[in-house]
Amino acid sequence: MDIPSPVYADVEAAARRLAGAAIRTPLLENPRVNDRLGGRLLIKAETLQRTGSFKFRGAYNFIAQLSPAQRQAGVVAWSSGNHAQGVAEAARILGTPATIVMPSDAPSIKVANTRASGATVISYDRVKDDREAIARDLATREGRTPIPPYDHPWIIAGQGTTGIEAVEQARELGVAFDAIIAPCSGGGLSTGVATAVKHLSPTTECYAGEPAGFDDLARSLAAGDIRRNDKLVGSFCDALLAPEPGKITFPIARRLLSGSIVASDEEVAEAMELAFREFKLVVEPGGAVGLAAVLTGRLPARGRTVCVVCSGGNVDGATFREALATALRRAA
Amino acid sequence: MDIPSPVYADVEAAARRLAGAAIRTPLLENPRVNDRLGGRLLIKAETLQRTGSFKFRGAYNFIAQLSPAQRQAGVVAWSSGNHAQGVAEAARILGTPATIVMPSDAPSIKVANTRASGATVISYDRVKDDREAIARDLATREGRTPIPPYDHPWIIAGQGTTGIEAVEQARELGVAFDAIIAPCSGGGLSTGVATAVKHLSPTTECYAGEPAGFDDLARSLAAGDIRRNDKLVGSFCDALLAPEPGKITFPIARRLLSGSIVASDEEVAEAMELAFREFKLVVEPGGAVGLAAVLTGRLPARGRTVCVVCSGGNVDGATFREALATALRRAA
Repeated sequence: MDIPSPVYADVEAAARRLAGAAIRTPLLENPRVNDRLGGRLLIKAETLQRTGSFKFRGAYNFIAQLSPAQRQAGVVAWSSGNHAQGVAEAARILGTPATIVMPSDAPSIKVANTRASGATVISYDRVKDDREAIARDLATREGRTPIPPYDHPWIIAGQGTTGIEAVEQARELGVAFDAIIAPCSGGGLSTGVATAVKHLSPTTECYAGEPAGFDDLARSLAAGDIRRNDKLVGSFCDALLAPEPGKITFPIARRLLSGSIVASDEEVAEAMELAFREFKLVVEPGGAVGLAAVLTGRLPARGRTVCVVCSGGNVDGATFREALATALRRAA
Repeated sequence: MDIPSPVYADVEAAARRLAGAAIRTPLLENPRVNDRLGGRLLIKAETLQRTGSFKFRGAYNFIAQLSPAQRQAGVVAWSSGNHAQGVAEAARILGTPATIVMPSDAPSIKVANTRASGATVISYDRVKDDREAIARDLATREGRTPIPPYDHPWIIAGQGTTGIEAVEQARELGVAFDAIIAPCSGGGLSTGVATAVKHLSPTTECYAGEPAGFDDLARSLAAGDIRRNDKLVGSFCDALLAPEPGKITFPIARRLLSGSIVASDEEVAEAMELAFREFKLVVEPGGAVGLAAVLTGRLPARGRTVCVVCSGGNVDGATFREALATALRRAA
């Protein structure tokens, strides 16, 4: 079967669809952080996107391409939380009923926000149940269109609009990126961004960032074929627990990414604390993994201009407080 | 003596000086919050401004107007922290040596950041010492130009550029503000914003926001002349402890403001928690007082479009964690 990889024109078309619906999130920097790194760090603050993460982009780009009959029949999605919120809000704006299948251990803020956008939430057990099967069953029984979280060209193209914006905003500052990194679960964001950035700025190195223990993309890239994670739970980065790279995203990753960089939970907590202190941004654990890659030096910033996509800010107060406390303990 | 109130043309000139130096901070909104309020709330996120607060605007507008000789001799300022950072960073960018007189109980993040911009920090006791006298003495002995925190037309005009941007950004969204509120310590921001907004949108009501116990502007407006606060310490809102309205800012406040709205420390903590949860913004206590005025309903948003300037995000991790905990306890 042909696997339809999105191309740059698809990302451009998504950007036109999203104009006025998605927020053009700011590209932020901080001279103190630049001094410390000996380079230039630019943060693409997708935390400030509608629904608090980049996921709105792909979801809106997807639903906007459905036929009137499909929109009327509704959509269904499975998600640990950010895709849930993105689909629910895009569905609300476009007038489509949405049902979302969410893990029972999803952060309460993500469940509450999904419901607040008017979606029906169905809970599943992350270890015992097959979320995709539940959603596909609902799709069949109710005639709903399933919206996959990453492995679809419309989703990848939508997420890629983040990359177009970042390159445009860098041009407005008169700079080009030596490297860009985006967090990776199933790879929709990182491969979408790479599709956009490699077209607009071919010499920019594109990276994914993954949490330790859930480095399926890093291992898959090393092996040359898809490798699964050993476990399905157990990282602080609740948004980055997809079991393996996607069938569509993985070939793009192989072609366009320079690698996937891994960070530990403690390094992610330190990145969240730096984002809080220096950028005044609330970043959720999974959203901070790219920043952790730069702060640890695994993605070198010295003498370079590096863009980090901080991809989401949907974190419970208790988790955020714990992350700040962890980082402060490690700094002491 | 004539008191030189800035006029709209001064704010416009400041905006031209600041172009490319200050960040055009985003105007953010959240449909869930709008639903809850029954109106439209737009947040002008000055937390994302250079140095984490609006104070950079006034400081840069001031130093940019000094002569080469004045710039070479350096500047001196007194501040609880945000003006300190704003002056230090504007001075660094414009190549001017800066000395900042800061209270010994200023948040450590503000002191550290002021030093990181290359400024010399001199500590004083908020109760025993006269910070203005210390700064003026330094000015006389070293030939430095003092940069007052609020009571100067260049400072007020610089802060007012926040208002021009907010009105422009609202126009881009196709709306006009029924009301706008900005936090108030000495009144530089609130009167600068009012100077801009009343010119561009005369029917918009302009408000200041103050913390309980430090409502000198509210009481001064009621009395018709300047009233002092009874105490100099004792609010969570460390940035809003100026003892009384300024000699220049107060007449502008009387002429342009519809009032000053007071919020308690607990209400401010709840506003910080909402900004965290719904807007993914780190807002310091003093920066959240306008948001508290809206959330408590003291500044009605129902059926209206209201702009809140969230003026700063320079808060220690421990204080931020405590604010989230306070808000969650009150919600339980």
